[in-house]
Amino acid sequence: MATSSASALSFTETLSLLSLSLASFAVIANTFQGDGAPLVASLAFSGLAFASSYSMIRWLGPTFMKAGLKGKDMSKVNKKEIPETMGAVCAVVYLLIITVFIPFPFYKDIVAATSGGGNRDVVLETIEHVQNGRFLHKFPHNKLASYLSAILTVQSISILGIGDDLFDIRWRHKFFIPGIASIPLLIVYFVDFGVTHIVVPIPLRPYLGELLQLGPLYYLYMFAIAIFCPNSINILAGINGIEVSQSLVIACLLVINDCYYLLNPYPHPATDSHLFSLYMLLPFIGVSLALWWHNWYPSRVFVGDTYCYFAGMVFAVVGILGHFSKTLLLLFIPQIFNFIYSAPQLFRIVECPRHRLPRFNARTNLMEPSVTEWVSPPKPVIVIFLKVLHQLHLLRVTTNEKGIITESTNFTLLNLWLVWFGPKREDRLAIEILAMQTVVGLFGLFVRHNFALLLFEKDNLKGIL
Amino acid sequence: MATSSASALSFTETLSLLSLSLASFAVIANTFQGDGAPLVASLAFSGLAFASSYSMIRWLGPTFMKAGLKGKDMSKVNKKEIPETMGAVCAVVYLLIITVFIPFPFYKDIVAATSGGGNRDVVLETIEHVQNGRFLHKFPHNKLASYLSAILTVQSISILGIGDDLFDIRWRHKFFIPGIASIPLLIVYFVDFGVTHIVVPIPLRPYLGELLQLGPLYYLYMFAIAIFCPNSINILAGINGIEVSQSLVIACLLVINDCYYLLNPYPHPATDSHLFSLYMLLPFIGVSLALWWHNWYPSRVFVGDTYCYFAGMVFAVVGILGHFSKTLLLLFIPQIFNFIYSAPQLFRIVECPRHRLPRFNARTNLMEPSVTEWVSPPKPVIVIFLKVLHQLHLLRVTTNEKGIITESTNFTLLNLWLVWFGPKREDRLAIEILAMQTVVGLFGLFVRHNFALLLFEKDNLKGIL
Repeated sequence: MATSSASALSFTETLSLLSLSLASFAVIANTFQGDGAPLVASLAFSGLAFASSYSMIRWLGPTFMKAGLKGKDMSKVNKKEIPETMGAVCAVVYLLIITVFIPFPFYKDIVAATSGGGNRDVVLETIEHVQNGRFLHKFPHNKLASYLSAILTVQSISILGIGDDLFDIRWRHKFFIPGIASIPLLIVYFVDFGVTHIVVPIPLRPYLGELLQLGPLYYLYMFAIAIFCPNSINILAGINGIEVSQSLVIACLLVINDCYYLLNPYPHPATDSHLFSLYMLLPFIGVSLALWWHNWYPSRVFVGDTYCYFAGMVFAVVGILGHFSKTLLLLFIPQIFNFIYSAPQLFRIVECPRHRLPRFNARTNLMEPSVTEWVSPPKPVIVIFLKVLHQLHLLRVTTNEKGIITESTNFTLLNLWLVWFGPKREDRLAIEILAMQTVVGLFGLFVRHNFALLLFEKDNLKGIL
Repeated sequence: MATSSASALSFTETLSLLSLSLASFAVIANTFQGDGAPLVASLAFSGLAFASSYSMIRWLGPTFMKAGLKGKDMSKVNKKEIPETMGAVCAVVYLLIITVFIPFPFYKDIVAATSGGGNRDVVLETIEHVQNGRFLHKFPHNKLASYLSAILTVQSISILGIGDDLFDIRWRHKFFIPGIASIPLLIVYFVDFGVTHIVVPIPLRPYLGELLQLGPLYYLYMFAIAIFCPNSINILAGINGIEVSQSLVIACLLVINDCYYLLNPYPHPATDSHLFSLYMLLPFIGVSLALWWHNWYPSRVFVGDTYCYFAGMVFAVVGILGHFSKTLLLLFIPQIFNFIYSAPQLFRIVECPRHRLPRFNARTNLMEPSVTEWVSPPKPVIVIFLKVLHQLHLLRVTTNEKGIITESTNFTLLNLWLVWFGPKREDRLAIEILAMQTVVGLFGLFVRHNFALLLFEKDNLKGIL
């Protein structure tokens, strides 16, 4: 009974979601007529995405629990079970929304092109006209394959993420899961676009020339981005709300960056890329906000690896197909730090327990750094390594009366933050990390837009990494 | 221990699968160079698809059982639990294979088109040349979006099928699941192709004209096909191996039909459609054979709703994008019969138990028709309906001494077959149904290719239903 009422929407919620949905439908119906304004439609679709994920996350809670998709919140006094893998709901809603959105940016072209009798060859004859005649927010029809490959890749990572949540795959295997999911993206890039040269930064041009043909290395680079983004979000995790919140921060910073390009006079060479990015990110923000609402401290649902993979892959796809993966990486600085910092444990140089999330102290109700206990003393070289990190304030090491290391804090950004600033309540820790992430990200964007001209004479050529 | 050894491949199996894989790789490496021969590559990929699904079905058995994806075989004396939802493995392997296959039919075009510097605009200028220069087995590049939408749709039904198997959705809800999955197909059809007129059969032309513009009705028709195919396979189920076997029969008949077109002089207007069909069906046969091996009587794994949906959707996609959905339906005659015959129970006109599969008689080791018991006597109109069917030999009704109906056999083709021809062993029943399906299908193809000219003056115009 308790489950059933917890899974029902309140009257206020029903009314708000219903109004939001109706307003969104009205806007969509309006933009579909006339010349259309895909960006407005995309905003309305994002409203729909929010409303439907919000309701489905609530309604499906008991169903997920019944199917065994549930987990205990370890950082609470009352460790009750709540639904897990709710990211799968977000992913499915997201995929449906961006699929249904397709006719909005792509519709106009084909109407002009097939009026006459539906023969495909007409497209070829009139496409020049269509391209000249099109205006802001519309895509040339030949971008459809790229867009579809983006959807395919996000869908692949969702299937594989659900598999991961179901079967609890080992870390060293699951590390490569996003790589498999990126195959559709890379293959279609190869067949449909195939540009693998990059613009060389000015200081290096005397040695490398203006354009550098990377060939297969470029695919390796895209593959690495696709593996890094999902995994890096997946390992900056462990406290309520942190996975969704960090993704929302990245998504919002990317949207700010996109808007910067849209304000430039059209046609800036990168406008299309950043429109594409907005079309992908706005519905993502919609579904993520709905999940955030239920996942923020104290969590009523868990997001699952599915969400982390899904979110990271949306960013990777946007960065790769939008050709701004370097800018993307600037927004991943905290995740990159956490990834490098975690490496000693991930690659088993230092012992790694099953869970590395901060430890909940039930007496104080605060989070403390979690530790790895050294049952037998570490090897001499590891001792030096740990002690140097301790001196640099990058770790806290506990020694016994003989000076032998008995404990060291786990290698995650969250634990390090607690080492630096002392125990905190779970939501306070999340807020501080997110504030830091936002500041670092904004600084990254500032640097990128003010100093990039020192390295490249033009902002965003086609084919730039 | 028993599970672990049952999940290992024998030495002979390992050797055979390894040889098959190596041979396939060699063929693929060969076709990728030079002019390429996508059809040969597709055959080799299908070999890979078989080898990898075969091994993964075996290896993942214990993992699936541990995650709760398991079921009891009710039609055996020893009702032991075996892995369920193995169709998910097939679907994932299939999706990966047809994605990796993309560069084979599509590669040549773009090489000609982007040689020069990777600028996309070059494609538009040279496409006429490319189209003239291309030869059998190669697709024009603008078909890529269709191909991708096919993959997307099959992937969508796989996600939703897995959801169905996990959450055990009610029949009246899950009936529409394939409809949701067909959205990418319909949307891309709308944006990318958009042809909705059909060729009118000659006898009707005085009234309707030569071409009939169906508009939205055409989308409704495609939607109906996409809902019908997966569901109809899903309800002709319940005995070992029947789901995979019937799908294999349909796939093979479709392949025969495709080959018929390839033997015609090129370019027959329908050649491309039937090549597309082959590229989709050959790997499907590969993964299905691997599943069949483990699912045939006595089953070592179950296929799950995932497989039925997946298989049905592959057929729907091939029929819709290949523009031969009418021919497709000719191969679904047993399923159509079973669907219509099941309707009274599916729509609750007659009582419907949870399971309608034939009943296993442990004493004789034979399958017998399963029955619905009428605890209270049926309504008069239902009595008449049941008795008429009984008279027509389309049902077996049992009455008590007062002439009141106490039992009626369940409305499925499998039960009806047992009513007609008496109790049979499970595999014998499957074989007879499959033989009947093959004969009916071959007859359908014969009629289609010999009498279609009475209705249409040309064989396969573009835009034909």
